[in-house]
Amino acid sequence: MGFCKRVVYKPVAEVDVSSSSDEVYISANVKAPRMAGLLVKLFVWLLELRILKPLLLYMLKRENQVHKFVSFVELEDPPLYVPLHPYEEHREPETKYLESGLSPSEQVQQATECIEFSENIGENEKISFRHWTILDYSRAYLSRQITPNMVADKFIASVHQSNDPALQMSFFISCDDQEILRQANEATLRYERGEPLSALDGVPFAVKDEIDCMPYPTTGGTKWLHKVRPCTDDADCVKRLKLCGAIIVGKTNMHELGAGTSGINPHYGAPRNPYDTNKITGGSSSGSAAVVSAGLCPAALGVDGGGSVRIPASLCGVVGLKPTFSRVSHSGVLPLNWTVGMVGVLAGTVEDAMIVYSAISGQILSHQHVEQRHPEVHLPLLNSPNCMPKIKLARYDKWFNDCSSDIKLSCSNALDQLQKIYGWETVDINVPEIESMRLAHYITIGSECNASLSRYLEKLDMDEVGWDARAALSLYGAFDSKEYLNAQRIRNRQLQIHQKIFDQADVIVTPTTGVTAYTIQDDAQKTGELDYINGASLVRYMIAGNFLGLPAVTVPVGYDRDGLPIGLQIIGKPWSEASLIYIAYAVQGLCAGEYKKPEVYYDLLSGLKKGETTQQN
Amino acid sequence: MGFCKRVVYKPVAEVDVSSSSDEVYISANVKAPRMAGLLVKLFVWLLELRILKPLLLYMLKRENQVHKFVSFVELEDPPLYVPLHPYEEHREPETKYLESGLSPSEQVQQATECIEFSENIGENEKISFRHWTILDYSRAYLSRQITPNMVADKFIASVHQSNDPALQMSFFISCDDQEILRQANEATLRYERGEPLSALDGVPFAVKDEIDCMPYPTTGGTKWLHKVRPCTDDADCVKRLKLCGAIIVGKTNMHELGAGTSGINPHYGAPRNPYDTNKITGGSSSGSAAVVSAGLCPAALGVDGGGSVRIPASLCGVVGLKPTFSRVSHSGVLPLNWTVGMVGVLAGTVEDAMIVYSAISGQILSHQHVEQRHPEVHLPLLNSPNCMPKIKLARYDKWFNDCSSDIKLSCSNALDQLQKIYGWETVDINVPEIESMRLAHYITIGSECNASLSRYLEKLDMDEVGWDARAALSLYGAFDSKEYLNAQRIRNRQLQIHQKIFDQADVIVTPTTGVTAYTIQDDAQKTGELDYINGASLVRYMIAGNFLGLPAVTVPVGYDRDGLPIGLQIIGKPWSEASLIYIAYAVQGLCAGEYKKPEVYYDLLSGLKKGETTQQN
Repeated sequence: MGFCKRVVYKPVAEVDVSSSSDEVYISANVKAPRMAGLLVKLFVWLLELRILKPLLLYMLKRENQVHKFVSFVELEDPPLYVPLHPYEEHREPETKYLESGLSPSEQVQQATECIEFSENIGENEKISFRHWTILDYSRAYLSRQITPNMVADKFIASVHQSNDPALQMSFFISCDDQEILRQANEATLRYERGEPLSALDGVPFAVKDEIDCMPYPTTGGTKWLHKVRPCTDDADCVKRLKLCGAIIVGKTNMHELGAGTSGINPHYGAPRNPYDTNKITGGSSSGSAAVVSAGLCPAALGVDGGGSVRIPASLCGVVGLKPTFSRVSHSGVLPLNWTVGMVGVLAGTVEDAMIVYSAISGQILSHQHVEQRHPEVHLPLLNSPNCMPKIKLARYDKWFNDCSSDIKLSCSNALDQLQKIYGWETVDINVPEIESMRLAHYITIGSECNASLSRYLEKLDMDEVGWDARAALSLYGAFDSKEYLNAQRIRNRQLQIHQKIFDQADVIVTPTTGVTAYTIQDDAQKTGELDYINGASLVRYMIAGNFLGLPAVTVPVGYDRDGLPIGLQIIGKPWSEASLIYIAYAVQGLCAGEYKKPEVYYDLLSGLKKGETTQQN
Repeated sequence: MGFCKRVVYKPVAEVDVSSSSDEVYISANVKAPRMAGLLVKLFVWLLELRILKPLLLYMLKRENQVHKFVSFVELEDPPLYVPLHPYEEHREPETKYLESGLSPSEQVQQATECIEFSENIGENEKISFRHWTILDYSRAYLSRQITPNMVADKFIASVHQSNDPALQMSFFISCDDQEILRQANEATLRYERGEPLSALDGVPFAVKDEIDCMPYPTTGGTKWLHKVRPCTDDADCVKRLKLCGAIIVGKTNMHELGAGTSGINPHYGAPRNPYDTNKITGGSSSGSAAVVSAGLCPAALGVDGGGSVRIPASLCGVVGLKPTFSRVSHSGVLPLNWTVGMVGVLAGTVEDAMIVYSAISGQILSHQHVEQRHPEVHLPLLNSPNCMPKIKLARYDKWFNDCSSDIKLSCSNALDQLQKIYGWETVDINVPEIESMRLAHYITIGSECNASLSRYLEKLDMDEVGWDARAALSLYGAFDSKEYLNAQRIRNRQLQIHQKIFDQADVIVTPTTGVTAYTIQDDAQKTGELDYINGASLVRYMIAGNFLGLPAVTVPVGYDRDGLPIGLQIIGKPWSEASLIYIAYAVQGLCAGEYKKPEVYYDLLSGLKKGETTQQN
C-alpha cells in the first residue's frame, strides 16, 4: 500500500493559526454521487459482497482522501483517545455559579433567576415571532388560566393532525396519548396543590429516540435495536427532567442509527421541516428539531455525535446547544459511539436552552475509568450585553465563506451587528487541517459505531436495516487499527491547534451549516438516500464540537431567499457553556426583529393574551 | 465473517473472582510451530505477499482464538483506552512519603535513608551471594580506597573481555570507552572535592537502547531506526540519573523493536545469560538484565511493554520493577506503543531497585492531554518485616501452577516461608478471562507499534529488518479498528475484575515466568526465531502489569535443576510501589541464603575487604 501522495504533518509547535498562515483551506471533495432508490440498493449489494468489499472500500478510501490524510501519513503526535478536558474556570462578570449538590429542580430555579423578565410576550416591538417559552408555560400554569391537562389535550390533537396524510410531519417514533395524559394530570394536581416541582413542571418535552425513556422502547430509528436492547430505565438526563416535572411527550424521529444528517428515516417517515414541508429537517435529531420548531414543545433533547443537534436546529430555525464532552451523563444513551457523542438541547429560545441545560447538567457518570470531573455549572445573567466584557470572535474567512451566499450574508451580518452594537471584535484566524479532522472524525465515529453494534449486527437480518444505514454500516467497518489510531493522533494535534486559536480569541464563529434545508426527493423516502456532498456541507462546521469535545451552540440569524432558516454557530473553550449561552443570547436579541413563524406551527398556549401570563406575580 | 464460536462476556458485576468461581482457566494455546532459519524466511515471505496476506492473517487470527475471544464477541463494556488511575494513597506504617518538588539527588538521599545498614558485605552468614550495591559503590568512593576512575577502568576491561569470541556476551549495542572515562573522571573529581551529587555518583549504570541517552544513537535494537530518528536529547529518566551523577556506561542490547521476549538480536548478537551462556537472557531488555546479573552495573533501565523488564530480570536472577503506568516520564523513550509501556528498573537487589526508582520518579510529563497526575512518591522503610502490617497475597492456583515444576516449587516455597515467618496469608482467588486479556494486549501493543512506526516502515528497505521482527511487524498490522476497540473494552473489564481482586487482597502473586531461560539455538542467531509457545510461557503472568498499568516487581526466589534463576512476581494496586518494594525486600531476605553467583561475573569492587566500605562513617 502507500502509493498515494501522503501528507507529512509538521510539528504542532510550527503550525500557524494566524490569518497570515500558509495553511491551505481544503473543502471536502467528496467523490460519491447522490444515490437513492435502486442505486443505493446496488451500492449496498456491492459493498456487502464479500469478494468485492475490500477492493471497493480501498477505492472509496483512496478517492475520498482517507489514504492521503489519515492512513499513510507522517505524523509525530501520540493519540488522544477521549476528548476529556481538565476543568478550567472561565469566570466572568455577570455569571452565576451553581453550588454543587443541587437537585435538578433547584438548578432550574437558579437558571430562571438568571433571566430578565422585561419582555412580555408580544409587548416588545422588536420581537416579530417567538416560540412560547418554558417560562410562558410556567407562568400560564401558575396563573391558573391554563393547566397542563389543557396543554396535553391540545398537544395530542396537534400531533394527530400533524400525522394527517396531507402533512405527514413524522415527528415521533413513539408517542402515547395515555402516558401524556397521565403525566399532565399529575402536573395539574401539583399546580392545584400549589406545589409545582420547577418551572419545567407540566411543560411538554420531547426526547430523541436514542435516549432511554420509560415506558417507550429506544429504537435508535431502527426496526430492531429495541428488540435486542430493551429499555429498562430512564437515561440520567431524562431522570433529571422528570424530577423537574417535565411532561415527556414521546420519542422523536431520527436518522436511523444517527448514521446520516438528512434526518430522513425509511421506517418512520421523513420528518418535515416546519418552515417548508418539502424540505428536510436535517439530522440526526430530526424529530426533536421539528417539534420545537413547530411549537409542540419549547425544548427537546437530542444527541450530537457529528452535528446531530446543531444541524437540525439550524435547518429548523431553533437554538441547539451541544455541551462540553462529559458535561451531561451519557448513561442510558444508546452507545453508538464512545468518544464524540454528547446529549444536547434543542429549544425555541436561548433562555430555554439554558434552563434545560441547567436541568440536565451536574452529575457526571463518566464511562471512562479516568478521574471523574464534576466541574461547576455556571450560567450567564441574561440581561443587557452592554454590561458584559467585550468578546473576541475568531473567524477563518475561507472556511466561513464556504457556504451558500445567503448563509454567508446572514452570518456576516450578525457579526457586523455584534461589532456595531456591542463592540465585539472579530479576529481573523486560520484553522489548519480541517479536512484531516473531518476524515479522522468519520473514521472514529464509524469505527466506534461498528464495534459497539457488532454484537447485534452479526445476528441481524440485514433486511430490517434501511438501505442508507446499511451502506453506512459497511463503510463504518472499513477501517484498520492504524487508521483508527492515526485518527486519534490527528485529534491530539487538533486539540492543540484549537488551544492556540483560543489563545487569540474567546470563541470561534462559523455558519452552522453550508447549506439550508434541501428538498426531500421522492426516491429518498423509501430507501433513504446517500448524499455525501450535501452531507459534507451540513457537517462542514460541526467536527471540532464532537471530535475535540468543545461546547458549541447554534442560534438562528436569518432566512435564505426561500425563507429557510440559517444558523450561526459559536464554538467555545472547554467548559465555557455560560459564555456561549450569553453570546447566543446577544445574537438572538439582535435578530429578534426578523424571526419568522414556521409554515407549520401549533400554538399550545393560544388562549393567552398579551401580558396575561405574568399576572400571577 | 463470524463463523467461529464467539464468546459472550457476562456483565462484569456478575464475574466472580473468588476461588469457588466457575470461571475456567484457559492456558494460551498457541498454534504456531517454532520457526528459525529458512522457515522464518519463508513465513515472512508469505506474510509479505500481498495476495496471500489477508488470508494468512485471517487463518492465524482464527487459529489463535483472536476471533473467538476478541473479534466476534458479545460484550457490553465501553472501551478504556489508557490505563490511567486516579491517585489513591496507600498509606502504611513504616513508609516514607517524599515531599513534592525534590530534586532527583534529594530523592535518592531520602531513599538511602530508608535502608537499614546492618548487613555489611559478607558479614551476614545468611547471605550466600549478593551483587555489589549502589551503597557499596558509594561507600567505597567515600572511603577513598576506590575511585570512579578505577571502577571505569575495570568496567571497560570487563566489557572488552565479555566480547571475546569465547564469550560473546553481546551486552551492549553502544558503549564508548572515552565517554565512560570522561564521566568517571568528573565523578572522581567530585568525590575529591567532597561534593558527590548523590549515592549514585560514579556508579556505573546501563540504559536500554530504547531510551534516548546522549551521545549514543537510539537504535531500538534495529539497524535503521536511529538513522531516521536521531537522538537529540536525553530522555527524562536519563536526565534525572545524570543529575544524580550516575555514569551511564552505554546502551544495552535488546530484542529488535521490543518485538519479542527471547532477547535474541540478529544484528547485535544474542545476549548470553550470565548463569549459563548457552541460554537466553529473556527480553526485550535483555542486555540490561545481563549486565546487572553479570555484575557490570548494580542497576540498569529497561522498558516494559509486555514483561520486557520483568522477564529478563527473572531469567537472569535479578530484581525487576515496573512502576504504575505514567509514574515515570515516557519522554525520550521510543514510542513503540502508547498505552502499555513503562520505564522500569533492573537491579541486583531490592534496595537498589528502590534507589533507582526514587531517582527516576516524580516529574510526570504525560503524553496524554488528560489531567496530569503528580502522585506522591512513597518508599518503604526497609528494616524488619515484623514491624509491618500483615500482607494478604492473592493466588490463582491453576494459573500459578501453569509453569515448570521447579518454578512452581520455588515460588510456592517462598509463599510458604512468608506465611511461616511473617504470618502473611495467601488468599485463593480466580483471575477470569486471562487468555482474553493476553490477546487483547497483543492486539493493542501490535496495533500501536504498527501505527507509530508506519511512517518509517513505509520508506524502509525491509532487508534491514531482522526476520523475526519482520514477521512481528506483519502480524502487528493485522487488526481492524473493531478488534482494537474490543481489546480496549476487554481492558475496561479486566481493570474492574482486578479491582474486585484487590478488594480481597493487597497484591497478586505469581511466578514471573512459566519457563526458565531456554537454549539459544544456532539457527536462531542469524534470523532470530519465532517461538510463540515459549513466548507465551514467558509472558504468561506479565499482562496485567502492562495492559492495566499496574505496578509489578519480580524478585529471585531460587533456581531450577539446571541452576537457572526463578523469579516470583508481585502485582500491586495502582501507585502501590512502596508496598511492592517492601514485599520484595521481605522475599529477598528469606531467600538470601540461597542466592548463587552467576557463571559469568565481573567484580568491579573486588579490591574491597569485608566491612571495609563502611569505615568512612
